[in-house]
Amino acid sequence: MAGKTNKGEKLIVNCIPVDEKDRQRFVDAAGDVPIEFCGDPKNYGDMKVKAQIPEELRGRATAVLGNFDPAIADQFTSLEWLQTWSAGVDAYIKPGLLPESVKITSATGAYGQSVGEHMIAMMWALMKNFTRYMRDQTEHQWKDEGTVLTPNGATALVIGTGDIGSHFAGLAKGAGMHTLGVRRSADKPVDGVDEMHGFDELDSLLPQADVVALSLPRAADTHHLLDARRIGLLKKDAIVINGGRGDAIDDDALADALSRNAIRGAGLDVFETEPLPPTHPLWDQPQCLITPHIAGGSHLASNDAHIVDIAVANVRRYVNGEPLQDNAHR
Amino acid sequence: MAGKTNKGEKLIVNCIPVDEKDRQRFVDAAGDVPIEFCGDPKNYGDMKVKAQIPEELRGRATAVLGNFDPAIADQFTSLEWLQTWSAGVDAYIKPGLLPESVKITSATGAYGQSVGEHMIAMMWALMKNFTRYMRDQTEHQWKDEGTVLTPNGATALVIGTGDIGSHFAGLAKGAGMHTLGVRRSADKPVDGVDEMHGFDELDSLLPQADVVALSLPRAADTHHLLDARRIGLLKKDAIVINGGRGDAIDDDALADALSRNAIRGAGLDVFETEPLPPTHPLWDQPQCLITPHIAGGSHLASNDAHIVDIAVANVRRYVNGEPLQDNAHR
Repeated sequence: MAGKTNKGEKLIVNCIPVDEKDRQRFVDAAGDVPIEFCGDPKNYGDMKVKAQIPEELRGRATAVLGNFDPAIADQFTSLEWLQTWSAGVDAYIKPGLLPESVKITSATGAYGQSVGEHMIAMMWALMKNFTRYMRDQTEHQWKDEGTVLTPNGATALVIGTGDIGSHFAGLAKGAGMHTLGVRRSADKPVDGVDEMHGFDELDSLLPQADVVALSLPRAADTHHLLDARRIGLLKKDAIVINGGRGDAIDDDALADALSRNAIRGAGLDVFETEPLPPTHPLWDQPQCLITPHIAGGSHLASNDAHIVDIAVANVRRYVNGEPLQDNAHR
Repeated sequence: MAGKTNKGEKLIVNCIPVDEKDRQRFVDAAGDVPIEFCGDPKNYGDMKVKAQIPEELRGRATAVLGNFDPAIADQFTSLEWLQTWSAGVDAYIKPGLLPESVKITSATGAYGQSVGEHMIAMMWALMKNFTRYMRDQTEHQWKDEGTVLTPNGATALVIGTGDIGSHFAGLAKGAGMHTLGVRRSADKPVDGVDEMHGFDELDSLLPQADVVALSLPRAADTHHLLDARRIGLLKKDAIVINGGRGDAIDDDALADALSRNAIRGAGLDVFETEPLPPTHPLWDQPQCLITPHIAGGSHLASNDAHIVDIAVANVRRYVNGEPLQDNAHR
C-alpha cells in the first residue's frame, strides 16, 4: 500500500522527537495502523520547532502528532485528528483553517507542573521583594527594601483550574495558603483547591485574594477578565500572577495599577502582545516580574515525557475508535 | 526603692517596643519583679535599632530585653540575663564583654518562618532562572534563558536544623522535595526533615544534594564549612542557599565555582563581610541572588509577635527561677 492510502484507512504521522523506547510505545499503541515517524531526535527536549512533515505524507495523514505550520494546513486533506504538542491550539482553530470535522487535542496536561511551579516561584519572588533586590544587585547596592509578605495563612484565588491551576493550588497549599478556585463548572472538586466557585462570584472573591493566579485558556469570555475595574477590587498588597493566556489581563490597566502602587506586584509569563513591546510600561515596574512565555515549553525535562504519555494514550484511543481525550478546556 | 536596687533584687528593663496589650503580658509575666519599659512604640515593627536605655537604669538592670549597644556593656554591672531581639548574639559573647555569669538568650526562634521562607523563595527563583530573566527585564529583553529545574523529587540537604532549617525543610517537602538534615545531634528528629545525619557524614551527603540550604549559627567549627573542596563535591546543577551565618561559606570559592558554572546557582542573604564589598565578584554572577541580610529582622510582621512571645515566656521563667530557654544553638 505504498504512496496512497485508501479511503477509510488510517495513517498516523508522528512528529514528536522520540528515542527508541518511546518509538516502541507509539508503535505498540498504533497496533495495525501504520505510523510514520518524522520527528528529528536531535530536537528531543525542544518542541518549540515546527513539525517538518514530508510533502508526500501530508495528504495521506489522517492523524498528525505535533504542531505543523498552520500556513500549510490545507495540504492535510485526509486529516481527522491533530494532537498538538503545545498547550494552546489557537493557531489551528481559526475559522476555515481546518474543517470542523478535524478533532484537535492539545498537550495542555503536560504543562501543569512546569507552569504551576513557575507561577508559585513568581509569587515567592514578589512576596520577598526579589525584583527590587535584583535591580539593586545589578548596581552592587546593599539596600534594605522593606517589609515582605508571607503565603502562610494568605488566600490564593486560582482562576482557571485545569492542570496548571490545580498544580499551582497544590503548591500554594504546601506553602500554607488557603485556596479558592474559579471555573465554569464550580461543582467539580479540584485537587489542591479548598473551595470552588463559579465565574459569577468573581467580583466578590477578588477583594479576598492575597494572590490572584490566572491560568485560563484563551476564549472570548475571558478576554480582559482582569480589567481596570476588577484590578480596582484587589487588596493594596495583592499579587497578580498570569501563566495562562495573556489577554485575560488588560496589561495597560495592570501597568497603571502597579505604577500607582494600587497592588503589590505582578508576575507575568504571558502578555496581550508577545513579545512584549520594548516600550511597554510593564518592563520598568519595579514590582513586576516578566518572563518571556517560557513557563511551559520544553524548559522542564519532564514536560516532554508528559507529552509522549498524552499522545500515546490518544493514539491508542484513536486506533480503537474511542473518544480522544483533551484537557484543554475543562 | 527608688534609684537603687538592693543586692539580690531583680529589675527587668524591657526595650522591646510594645503596644498596650503586649505591655500587659510582660507585666503579668514579671509578677512581683519590677519591669521598666524603654521601648519606643514608634519603633514597633523595627527592632533593628539599638535599644536606648536611660543611664540610671543600666547599673540596676538585672535583666535586659533587647539589643543594647555592646560598647556600653560594662555599665550593666548588675546584669544576670540578656534576652536579645536578634537571632544572633555574636556581638555579646565576645570574651571580656560581659561576665561569664551573664546568661544570654536569643530570639532565634522568632525568625524561623521568615528566614526559612526567604530561603525557599531564593531556591525557586534560582531553579526558574529568575536572576537571568530579571537582568533581561532591566534591558527590556525578551529572551529565552533555557531549561529550568524542579524541586519535585529533588533532594534538599539542610545544614543546621534549628527553627530556620526546620521551617525551610517543611516548605521544601511541600514543594515535593526529599529532605536530609545535618546537625551535631543527629539522633533528634526535626520537623520537616526526612533523614537526620551528623556533620561527619557531610562529605558523602553533598554529592546527593540538589539544593544545599545552610542555616547555621556562627561557631568556630562551621567557619568555611562550605569551602572550595566541599563545593567541588556538589552536583553541577546544585543550588546553594545561605540564610544562616555568612562565614559558613567561603565566598571567594563560591564566586569562583559560579563563574566556572561548576554549580547551578546560589542564593545568599548573609556574607563573610557585610555589607558585601561593592567589588566582590558575587555581585555580577548571573546565577547568584543577593539580598542584604534582610531575611529575618522585622521584615515580616509576625516576627515581632514571635519575639514578644519568646521574651514573655523567658520573663516568666526568670522571675520563677526556672531555666531560661534559648534555641540558638540547638
